[in-house]
Amino acid sequence: MDRKLAEGVLYTDQYQLTMAQLYYRTGMAERQARFEHFFRRYPDYGRHQAGYCINAGAAWLADWIHTVRFDDASLDKLRSHRNHLGVPIFGDDFLDWLADVGDFSSLRFEAIPEGRVVHPNVPLTVVEGPLALAQLIETSVLNHLNFQTLIATKASRVVEAANGGSVLEFGMRRAPERGATAASRASLVGGATGTSNAGLAHALGFTPSGTHAHSMVQVFMALGDGELGAFRAYADIYPDECLLLVDTINTLDSGVPNAITVFSELRAKGHQPVGIRLDSGDLAHLAVKSSQMLDEAGFPEVTIVLSSSLDEITIWQILNQIAVEAPQYGQDAQHVMGRLMYGCGTRMATSEGDPSLDGVYKLVAIEDNGSWKPAIKLSDTPAKVINPGPKRVFRIYSRRGTATADLLAQADEQLTDPLVLHHPSAEGVMRRLPSERISGREELLEPFDPWTPADEHEAVVEARGRRSDDLARLDVGVRRIVNPHVYHVSLSAASWELKHSIMNEMRRGRQG
Amino acid sequence: MDRKLAEGVLYTDQYQLTMAQLYYRTGMAERQARFEHFFRRYPDYGRHQAGYCINAGAAWLADWIHTVRFDDASLDKLRSHRNHLGVPIFGDDFLDWLADVGDFSSLRFEAIPEGRVVHPNVPLTVVEGPLALAQLIETSVLNHLNFQTLIATKASRVVEAANGGSVLEFGMRRAPERGATAASRASLVGGATGTSNAGLAHALGFTPSGTHAHSMVQVFMALGDGELGAFRAYADIYPDECLLLVDTINTLDSGVPNAITVFSELRAKGHQPVGIRLDSGDLAHLAVKSSQMLDEAGFPEVTIVLSSSLDEITIWQILNQIAVEAPQYGQDAQHVMGRLMYGCGTRMATSEGDPSLDGVYKLVAIEDNGSWKPAIKLSDTPAKVINPGPKRVFRIYSRRGTATADLLAQADEQLTDPLVLHHPSAEGVMRRLPSERISGREELLEPFDPWTPADEHEAVVEARGRRSDDLARLDVGVRRIVNPHVYHVSLSAASWELKHSIMNEMRRGRQG
Repeated sequence: MDRKLAEGVLYTDQYQLTMAQLYYRTGMAERQARFEHFFRRYPDYGRHQAGYCINAGAAWLADWIHTVRFDDASLDKLRSHRNHLGVPIFGDDFLDWLADVGDFSSLRFEAIPEGRVVHPNVPLTVVEGPLALAQLIETSVLNHLNFQTLIATKASRVVEAANGGSVLEFGMRRAPERGATAASRASLVGGATGTSNAGLAHALGFTPSGTHAHSMVQVFMALGDGELGAFRAYADIYPDECLLLVDTINTLDSGVPNAITVFSELRAKGHQPVGIRLDSGDLAHLAVKSSQMLDEAGFPEVTIVLSSSLDEITIWQILNQIAVEAPQYGQDAQHVMGRLMYGCGTRMATSEGDPSLDGVYKLVAIEDNGSWKPAIKLSDTPAKVINPGPKRVFRIYSRRGTATADLLAQADEQLTDPLVLHHPSAEGVMRRLPSERISGREELLEPFDPWTPADEHEAVVEARGRRSDDLARLDVGVRRIVNPHVYHVSLSAASWELKHSIMNEMRRGRQG
Repeated sequence: MDRKLAEGVLYTDQYQLTMAQLYYRTGMAERQARFEHFFRRYPDYGRHQAGYCINAGAAWLADWIHTVRFDDASLDKLRSHRNHLGVPIFGDDFLDWLADVGDFSSLRFEAIPEGRVVHPNVPLTVVEGPLALAQLIETSVLNHLNFQTLIATKASRVVEAANGGSVLEFGMRRAPERGATAASRASLVGGATGTSNAGLAHALGFTPSGTHAHSMVQVFMALGDGELGAFRAYADIYPDECLLLVDTINTLDSGVPNAITVFSELRAKGHQPVGIRLDSGDLAHLAVKSSQMLDEAGFPEVTIVLSSSLDEITIWQILNQIAVEAPQYGQDAQHVMGRLMYGCGTRMATSEGDPSLDGVYKLVAIEDNGSWKPAIKLSDTPAKVINPGPKRVFRIYSRRGTATADLLAQADEQLTDPLVLHHPSAEGVMRRLPSERISGREELLEPFDPWTPADEHEAVVEARGRRSDDLARLDVGVRRIVNPHVYHVSLSAASWELKHSIMNEMRRGRQG
């Protein structure tokens, strides 16, 4: 399959191309337009909803933008597309224009940096430039940003549930095919310590994680050397990275005792065993019992890695169970919890419970005679009415330094003191914040230049740092993994006024 | 980002590499091994479970296999990987062996062809060859096959719910990043008529589908030309493909009347309008009302495309509602349903409700002194016990020609008459089928040669054909989209005997 063709400049929905030709033919292709990418609601995992998202994906969107071109191979495919009457869909006039334009370098971008905490209806990415190109790029913007933001959000929740224990991502076997690559990266942005994805880790300058699977033990068993033989072979080859999977036969009767035997042999040779991994059964109970057995054998320091369908809720429940069950076996619960690490696969890499972020890309303004005309969409679903006009986004911090609201202001608006924060849809519901009640306001959108790609490794490291910083300034109620407190995203006075004047005008127009 | 590095031969979990080195160091790298890929349970979407899956993905697994190599760039990355003590994880001995081996060409494959109906615990793909290589390829096998099978299954259900109406895939904006490419292909395998994914469609030799989005109407509205101006511009440029999105302002008050105006103008110029698209609100109600308005205006033949969060359940419910509501407006329900098409996006491209297939890849046998030794895994979770030994898979058809069971036989087993079909886990539960009660048995696994890639277009077309043929031979109760009847996957006498003799032997070993 020709991925270069499929995922190059034609990595878009067909309607973007038909609209672009229409803009070209009606003389609007180069008219300036402004689109905003935002999501409407947090991921909702069924039993529980996210209270925040972690923004991610911009670096790889940039990667796509600065590598694709309207090249001959792509334009020839468009030229070959004919309708049911045999007539070409795209004319040479339009295709020649695309060839002349060449790429997306006439677009300007703003974005909230990767790793930052973000909320619904806030523009995360802004694209400004010639209408036809800003339209054409929609699909790629959404495809590259929605998924990484979704997975970084899920990972962030898993990492919060792990409460200091390291989280390793190993979901690629059941991840969405090549989306696995993005899922691994987004997990790192969301706070995972490492990934098993060897190719991706090497491409980003990280060290991949991984030891062995059941199949290795099965091989030794089938050939008569048993689990102990498998463990010894592993310890022999990886004496300083000896982490053994102990549930191929039976965790407590076979796996842990055999691991202890091998750990003792390793220690006698001057090596420090690393740990065991539990991958089936009652993980909390097995962690307590394994911890006890390891302690009694003189290995209180080795790690216990848990895996098997873990997500934030499962980890939370496992830790709760350990708190109750550890003392029943004479174990200190903090000691057991303190030695845990978590291998998270499918559920993190697919955002199980809600496998998509409902991010959209909407026209908010179009240039007319040198100034912006705001654009709106009403639709038959009230929640789909957009906030019109070019905007700036401010995060408002309380006197305690906690983020208290995001404010969508018009780009040309002078903010007042007190700040006025309108509820986004409920008429007359507003807060007034005088300057003495806030510690500061921060502009969230920054210029974003896809043609100056950041170092791949640094981009992830910096994003993780932003995540930590933002979480430290987020209300703990909003961070809660179940039933979180609602964070406020508000409209400024001018944003409220503009939205409602246009809506009223259009409704009057419809009745007239 | 270096996708060639990330998605080349290192597109694998780290533990596959550490295990491969262990097999090399213990002299087992080239010992023959047999692994099977199968899934354990149907996707379960929360409210409803699948009753069958559609197998997909083999062509792109082949694509990966015959393009990747253990090249210098990849091996250098492995050489650079050091543990916490600064010691290289991989030795030159192993890396030189990989370089000598070069690729996966010493592996042999069998597979159930794409598009076929498949069931849990049935080997869908079999990999046989040198242990180290068969182990290394696990991640790629699972990554390429699990996701496409998942999406083809979802698409097949959506297509069944659509009951003859065409289904178009347009999920790439919220699909899992580059997994979108596979999702579009798998949707086509699962029976979708077309896709909006321009790059993928052109790469596979299909014609992409798409017309326009709300943003086009917004542009014209913001510039004072309104929805009617937008529709006229579209009709002018695409007079023979005029399908108009009618919900940007209000579907029934504005969109449909404006569309009718433009359709009349088109017809006067000798063109045949194509249809309208409804993308928000009560789609069933709006379909009935729009159909009525179009009929009254003299356009009973134009299509109505529905979109907005559609899946198999939503489509089923929409059709039910139309059956009730159409007569209330003097419309013939069959007429309304007969003009519908369905645009399915996010929910199909992510398999919402269950975003992963739990496909696994398990060692079932390893060569010892020239013969196969069966391999097993017990685990602490009973459902994870595998069926050991090299196997063949037969589909048994009833006298009516309906598939009645899949039978997992041992590769060297002579099947008896009557056939004995054991329940896979319940002792003593079995069926006996004498030859006069069956119309035939069909072997499902076929040789699969990744080095002779099929034509991309033909592969999809043939897979769709297999899906239709298999569905026609599947019990309608199994095809039901909610609470389907359970299809039988049975063990042959020899498979049952082998599994239980090994389990008993191991359990005795543990007690001894």
